[in-house]
Amino acid sequence: MTDLGGTLRRASLAPSSSADDAAPLKDATLLSFNQATAERASLADVIEACARHGVPGISIWRHKLAETGVEHAAKLLRDAGLRVSSVCRGGMFPAPTAAERSTRIDDNRRAIDDAATLGAEVLVLVCGAAPDRDIGAAREMVADGIAAIAPYAAERGVRLGIEPLHPAFAAERSCITTMREARLISERFDSAHVGVVVDVYHVWWDPERAEEIARLGDRVAGYHVNDWLVPVKNVLMNRGMMGDGVIELRRIRGEIERAGYRGPIEVEIFNEEIWQTPLDELVRLTKERFVEVA
Amino acid sequence: MTDLGGTLRRASLAPSSSADDAAPLKDATLLSFNQATAERASLADVIEACARHGVPGISIWRHKLAETGVEHAAKLLRDAGLRVSSVCRGGMFPAPTAAERSTRIDDNRRAIDDAATLGAEVLVLVCGAAPDRDIGAAREMVADGIAAIAPYAAERGVRLGIEPLHPAFAAERSCITTMREARLISERFDSAHVGVVVDVYHVWWDPERAEEIARLGDRVAGYHVNDWLVPVKNVLMNRGMMGDGVIELRRIRGEIERAGYRGPIEVEIFNEEIWQTPLDELVRLTKERFVEVA
Repeated sequence: MTDLGGTLRRASLAPSSSADDAAPLKDATLLSFNQATAERASLADVIEACARHGVPGISIWRHKLAETGVEHAAKLLRDAGLRVSSVCRGGMFPAPTAAERSTRIDDNRRAIDDAATLGAEVLVLVCGAAPDRDIGAAREMVADGIAAIAPYAAERGVRLGIEPLHPAFAAERSCITTMREARLISERFDSAHVGVVVDVYHVWWDPERAEEIARLGDRVAGYHVNDWLVPVKNVLMNRGMMGDGVIELRRIRGEIERAGYRGPIEVEIFNEEIWQTPLDELVRLTKERFVEVA
Repeated sequence: MTDLGGTLRRASLAPSSSADDAAPLKDATLLSFNQATAERASLADVIEACARHGVPGISIWRHKLAETGVEHAAKLLRDAGLRVSSVCRGGMFPAPTAAERSTRIDDNRRAIDDAATLGAEVLVLVCGAAPDRDIGAAREMVADGIAAIAPYAAERGVRLGIEPLHPAFAAERSCITTMREARLISERFDSAHVGVVVDVYHVWWDPERAEEIARLGDRVAGYHVNDWLVPVKNVLMNRGMMGDGVIELRRIRGEIERAGYRGPIEVEIFNEEIWQTPLDELVRLTKERFVEVA
């Protein structure tokens, strides 16, 4: 279906149009730059670039905190005046033994501490895959894991955001693949403490997407934008800049807004070409596309 | 998660075990060899190999019919005594213009003719992707397309089998991604004429899989087995031989059997390494794994 790729490239920035679509964003007030979009840059450099380009929010990955230590990172963020929409990531609950699952719980507590220290609103949970073939058992381990950490997260003032991942990642990253499944787990807890993170890359295809976002209501704990490129090559690294793929971004934002969500919108793009882009150009382009098509 | 790959390779043939699992298959009576598993071989060679190895069924792809012509292919199949479980594929309904959609309908009628000539029980429908960003509109085009061809298929005695494809293919091959969605379309028609084809590769991750298979009941129009390899590289070509990946094959066959399905089970594997395997070795291995783990 190379035709499709061609058609989309030619009309790459023409958004879809429907009465249900959200109005264009007037400015970048809600923009949060997820650091994974600039994976090759240091945390300090990304913080500086966001401040320089007037990007108000940021999302921090834990492996990047090792560069500076969490306390120093918190100082850099405060000094730059950035809103920390989330920390990525907790989760990865399923493991073959009770001892290993317990180790994962401990690591999630440390992730909650990191989020609290950084003043992050949400800890994103990438739930993990089955250690064997039994995806049903893994789903139980996820629910048990969240139950084990939810009281501590509430105590530290960090909301947990369950992020369902695209079914292409079901065997390696997350046995939780649909918004419905994430919602059903989150409903075991107070919505103030456990919600669902909606990333367009993971959910755009879901025939029940609009209905499920409506059901989430105040459980929407975060909204991530990017795009689904055509043709798909490496499904992990197939994300593109908003406007370069097939996702109806304004349609989905309309759904999110009708659910009542008014929080930050993260731009999160795993893509080698994006990662090779010089940081200033990348942040400028992100802000431009955010306002133009997100 | 390379660990996972390692674990699975070591224990590659140990099936999952649960009271809900199907009993081991006693023999290859239900086996149908989908020709896509031997994409590099000619239709005549695959027919001969199936006959030689005592494989009772076959599924034929239309692009292979061009090699011999459909009438000659029908003769070869009859002479070999093979059961034709399905023809692949009809579908691809969405298109940007009414004229182009009408051309697709005509092609589907020819596919129905091919299936009737070959004595195939089912025409598999791979429904097609949106020609633009509007996946909702594409889904309507699919429902309209099936409505347009269903009467002709019934007249020719060919059952239509809607095959939901894995969401990784939503932008390029099929806007119909879940069993539920396929079932809801199929329910607009008599179950004798329109059903749903369940391919483990496309549905193994679905948290509502067992429930949806039960709801399908006599609408299960075909069952395809293979495996989901870890780690995923190219998602289109990531299928493996049964037993080499993470899919709980006997669990899903249990669900299919409880739904009442007693028809042929197709082995369909798109994988370059499988395609490079000499035909006799491939058919022998397929039969062996079918009995051992499917």
